Amino acid sequence: MKKNRQLFESLDSVRDKPILAQIDPSSVWGIKDREDAEDRLEKATRELSDLQYRLYAEAKTGLLLIFQAMDTGGKDGVIRKVLGPLNPQGVEVTSFKRPTPDELAHDYLWRIHSRVPARGKIGVFNRSHYEDVLVPRVHKLAPKEELNCRYRQINDFERHLGENGVILLKFYLHISKDEQKRRLKERLDKPEKNWKFEPADLAERELWDKYREAYQAIMEKCSSPHAPWYVIPSNRKWFRDIAVAEIIRRELNRINPSLPKAKEGLRDLKVK
Amino acid sequence: MKKNRQLFESLDSVRDKPILAQIDPSSVWGIKDREDAEDRLEKATRELSDLQYRLYAEAKTGLLLIFQAMDTGGKDGVIRKVLGPLNPQGVEVTSFKRPTPDELAHDYLWRIHSRVPARGKIGVFNRSHYEDVLVPRVHKLAPKEELNCRYRQINDFERHLGENGVILLKFYLHISKDEQKRRLKERLDKPEKNWKFEPADLAERELWDKYREAYQAIMEKCSSPHAPWYVIPSNRKWFRDIAVAEIIRRELNRINPSLPKAKEGLRDLKVK
Repeated sequence: MKKNRQLFESLDSVRDKPILAQIDPSSVWGIKDREDAEDRLEKATRELSDLQYRLYAEAKTGLLLIFQAMDTGGKDGVIRKVLGPLNPQGVEVTSFKRPTPDELAHDYLWRIHSRVPARGKIGVFNRSHYEDVLVPRVHKLAPKEELNCRYRQINDFERHLGENGVILLKFYLHISKDEQKRRLKERLDKPEKNWKFEPADLAERELWDKYREAYQAIMEKCSSPHAPWYVIPSNRKWFRDIAVAEIIRRELNRINPSLPKAKEGLRDLKVK
Repeated sequence: MKKNRQLFESLDSVRDKPILAQIDPSSVWGIKDREDAEDRLEKATRELSDLQYRLYAEAKTGLLLIFQAMDTGGKDGVIRKVLGPLNPQGVEVTSFKRPTPDELAHDYLWRIHSRVPARGKIGVFNRSHYEDVLVPRVHKLAPKEELNCRYRQINDFERHLGENGVILLKFYLHISKDEQKRRLKERLDKPEKNWKFEPADLAERELWDKYREAYQAIMEKCSSPHAPWYVIPSNRKWFRDIAVAEIIRRELNRINPSLPKAKEGLRDLKVK
């Protein structure tokens, strides 16, 4: 763990109400290069598998991982690379898309709450309720009072989850505007990436600064010790992956789930 | 409505943190007798049907009715009598039983939130999240701090619903211990009521005073202007029914849902 000291020190130093403008999206805090990152990731995911097994067997705590980012920020990628190696029986990924009519007919946390992981499971949110304070702000769909009301509702909701056995980790995958340009161009230029290109993404890119402001507000309003935001410099995908993996590994080690005790009298049983 | 003045004045006078011990379960505030009650109920449910139709068409507001009571208090009866006449397409009744393993693996509000009515619908809860502060207190399954934490979580949750288009009315059906005795005996004596008798109810009856205290605490901790508790004297079923019907009618009239405007150009269309 000693070799991770610089990584964690850097990650933790920007955890409490981070200032996005001051964080270089190309940072690789304490990780040498791609090879170093990949070596570490292999070891980290092996340990994550063991930790997940114990979390599942103990069935006391749920772990909820929330991923938010600008378009092309790498949510799909980090989920595949870090959580892909885990036993899918214990991992539930939910991609929140544009709300359905039935979802719109309910309060915005209704569909979110329904997908919160059970004790023993790891829930992964690809987008989340943070879209409901992001898009309305950027597109001016809600007055400021309503947004403030939602920040409070979200804090209440996350506190309730924390008090009821669900641990939350929130990741903002932090890329630069130039890096987004490069990735969008790649989606246009490479046939096998064409399917990911949405013309609407170009319009959203025009609103880069507004989105940045909206994320900044989210981190100021909705960071708390029991549900912190981690800003992950994500211009380099290999750094993004190992940083997220290490944070999850640290948290699961902190929870330190243990296998339930063998049932009474088990030693005396014989299988015939 | 003038003839209901005494009824509403009495109901409203005990609405804000009511003291159960001071409310006579045999009260019939302003209602003359069974015949008077039944006449009024017929009129009230006719108007309720019209109001529900408009609520459904407007699809802006959800109405959530929560029913709690001691055993035999009459939850099933009042739901059948008052809400039975409404169009079932707009009414969703949920009876919360002992939690399933999947429900127990989540926070206690998980199953509750999933059943909150959509805008335009009337949701009816036969028992509710209040069981989760009632039973643990009576059976000493949770320390006081955890109960206090839950009262706060419930208030946060109900406020969130209120701020997101769901109006809550909470009904406590108030019967006397003698009336419960009479009703339990009836369940034992009448063959067609035998199926409702649970031997466990007798053990719970022994805990009458503890349940009463627990309800008193709920009303002190979880009454708020946007989600009030109504104590309904319920020894007389006919009074219970008309009192609940009138409260729902008054609330729907306050919401005053209106049919959406005809679509542009509708007048010029011809059906051939």
